[in-house]
Amino acid sequence: MKVKVSRKEHFNAAHRLFNPNWTEEQNEKVFGKCNNPNYHGHNYELIVSLVGEPDPETGYVYDLKVLSDIIKENVLIKLDHKNLNLDTEYFLSLIPTAENIALVIWRILRQKIDPKFELKITLYETERNFVEYPAS
Amino acid sequence: MKVKVSRKEHFNAAHRLFNPNWTEEQNEKVFGKCNNPNYHGHNYELIVSLVGEPDPETGYVYDLKVLSDIIKENVLIKLDHKNLNLDTEYFLSLIPTAENIALVIWRILRQKIDPKFELKITLYETERNFVEYPAS
Amino acid sequence: MKVKVSRKEHFNAAHRLFNPNWTEEQNEKVFGKCNNPNYHGHNYELIVSLVGEPDPETGYVYDLKVLSDIIKENVLIKLDHKNLNLDTEYFLSLIPTAENIALVIWRILRQKIDPKFELKITLYETERNFVEYPAS
Amino acid sequence: MKVKVSRKEHFNAAHRLFNPNWTEEQNEKVFGKCNNPNYHGHNYELIVSLVGEPDPETGYVYDLKVLSDIIKENVLIKLDHKNLNLDTEYFLSLIPTAENIALVIWRILRQKIDPKFELKITLYETERNFVEYPAS
Amino acid sequence: MKVKVSRKEHFNAAHRLFNPNWTEEQNEKVFGKCNNPNYHGHNYELIVSLVGEPDPETGYVYDLKVLSDIIKENVLIKLDHKNLNLDTEYFLSLIPTAENIALVIWRILRQKIDPKFELKITLYETERNFVEYPAS
Amino acid sequence: MKVKVSRKEHFNAAHRLFNPNWTEEQNEKVFGKCNNPNYHGHNYELIVSLVGEPDPETGYVYDLKVLSDIIKENVLIKLDHKNLNLDTEYFLSLIPTAENIALVIWRILRQKIDPKFELKITLYETERNFVEYPAS
Repeated sequence: MKVKVSRKEHFNAAHRLFNPNWTEEQNEKVFGKCNNPNYHGHNYELIVSLVGEPDPETGYVYDLKVLSDIIKENVLIKLDHKNLNLDTEYFLSLIPTAENIALVIWRILRQKIDPKFELKITLYETERNFVEYPAS
Repeated sequence: MKVKVSRKEHFNAAHRLFNPNWTEEQNEKVFGKCNNPNYHGHNYELIVSLVGEPDPETGYVYDLKVLSDIIKENVLIKLDHKNLNLDTEYFLSLIPTAENIALVIWRILRQKIDPKFELKITLYETERNFVEYPAS
Repeated sequence: MKVKVSRKEHFNAAHRLFNPNWTEEQNEKVFGKCNNPNYHGHNYELIVSLVGEPDPETGYVYDLKVLSDIIKENVLIKLDHKNLNLDTEYFLSLIPTAENIALVIWRILRQKIDPKFELKITLYETERNFVEYPAS
Repeated sequence: MKVKVSRKEHFNAAHRLFNPNWTEEQNEKVFGKCNNPNYHGHNYELIVSLVGEPDPETGYVYDLKVLSDIIKENVLIKLDHKNLNLDTEYFLSLIPTAENIALVIWRILRQKIDPKFELKITLYETERNFVEYPAS
Repeated sequence: MKVKVSRKEHFNAAHRLFNPNWTEEQNEKVFGKCNNPNYHGHNYELIVSLVGEPDPETGYVYDLKVLSDIIKENVLIKLDHKNLNLDTEYFLSLIPTAENIALVIWRILRQKIDPKFELKITLYETERNFVEYPAS
Repeated sequence: MKVKVSRKEHFNAAHRLFNPNWTEEQNEKVFGKCNNPNYHGHNYELIVSLVGEPDPETGYVYDLKVLSDIIKENVLIKLDHKNLNLDTEYFLSLIPTAENIALVIWRILRQKIDPKFELKITLYETERNFVEYPAS
């Protein structure tokens, strides 16, 4: 009787997509406008989902107020109103694409959420571009 | 060649989260503002999804107008503009969390929808908090 | 060079529409499902707008973080997760329609916002029903 | 380490639902208003999702700008601002329900996307009616 | 103490934009894809707003359930699931642009709504294109 | 018979709010997280509205496809995927608050749009914070 419960949060950040091992031409060709050396930014919408059985005492799979606090204290504090390339430890050698940001958030939260709950991250970079990890 | 088809409906209801076997302090600690003895309420967004093969005669997996009518006649009539704790039979001994409301709706509709169709419920309690049953 | 700046907040509340001077039949006829004696509820979306000139020192008409705090400390604390009829002082002799809730919020905030700013309230009771005060 | 990446596009089209092998009465009974002989129309929202592993060189599963171009050049050019029954080759003997439109789009794109990526189509006919293929 | 109250409805319709007094080239140049002779279509979102004073007996400026019924019985019945050019009386000599559809709806409703209420129409043809009448 | 017509576009940009005439402490106190020296960013949603009379020949107040092109060629080309502080000429001595960005966009477009049309800018910095110029 497994239920998936989800909490939506958001953060705003600047980033730049480029591969330091490539020439400027390669970066321009692959990343185009996203390679602007002075950065651009997004309002990221983040959905964190947990799968588990409702606790018969509370009717909750997971208290979403608690989940919201865990996200704020472990993810938003690191990413919100930041330059992802310069202000965080996560993207020193990792390109801050939506895919990689989702993977980073999954790894942070996986350590904070009891392993009995499956964990899934959905990240909207824009209303039209979004990613999910794991995929299924 | 299975396709999932979904219909979105909504209902407005009042509810209160509390466990009658607990002290007031326990309820306050776990449910916080949601434990207000005079109730609070939500605009619930309900998505009902069915999985099946399109009928070659109609091109439909399921006529969504028919599905909408089934939802209205079996779910919304019971929950819309109601106090979930006081006005329904479902939450006499079940806490009306989003998880439990989704399970109740699933059980109601499972009896009305041909078993050849998989059935899934998604329920938004707010824009930021939502649940899915079954989880996958 | 007047600019209008707006901040959106939300609150969840239960309410009941009825006129205590009317018979049950009159209330039923006018308010229908909204007259449920056990209450129903909504996710209210509240937009507070101020009109003024941008301060050349800050580029702000009004710091929207400050506006958000004023709304939380003066409006949400009174209405969020409440029964509007039973838990607030505002609707003892006033029916908590969206129109009247908007007027109440306007009066609360008008005392907290410098009169040099025009103040406007937009209140969504559902995605399909909303009100604005003042009208223009 | 599979990630699902999604791109949202939209198109506007006219269509009519009817089965030429049926009587007018049968069509009226099954398709109702959607059987209007002069057509009606929709703003279709289309989400195309691919599942794969992020490329360590780019951080992308698939460049969503490239995916957007593939959708525009292969799907939107055929369906946008068209009469699905009269202006396309796809619905000569297939009823243009949302289910069938999704299947057609899946088949078009499956030929353009490397088979190493799983492909999924989500199609909103209205905000309240939508379909997904494949279902899981 | 005037309040504006609004009700949102929707309808789906096919249309074609062309001026019968023009050559095909002129129509193509001005209306482009919207001139498709076989029509295309939209999900129109319609917001009807009334301005007036709340009735002290009800707290309503206007019962939005009644307004919804008036819109359904006078506007949606004429436009929903129709071909605006062929199935309605309104666009025999008027091009069914969003501007003109809004004007037509305003004229229909103006006859049904007590003149003491100001009436305003907002019409979304797509999420990105919308019109309002009157303008202020 | 004036109608307001609106076109919605979007752009992504990085920015930083600070006043170079202030101390770091003053900037921190007023702008908080928005003062991050390495910038943060947003998905800006931009609505451009024009008021005028529908042309009886076309039914259009203004061709929204043409308006979209004007916005892209004059505004988005300057602001999309840019650092507003470093990559544009507009914010050398102007703080890139939403208010000031809206004023800058208004001035750019006012030169491109026939003065017979009133022009209004609405700019969403986030879903919860937005500004309008002129205010009425």
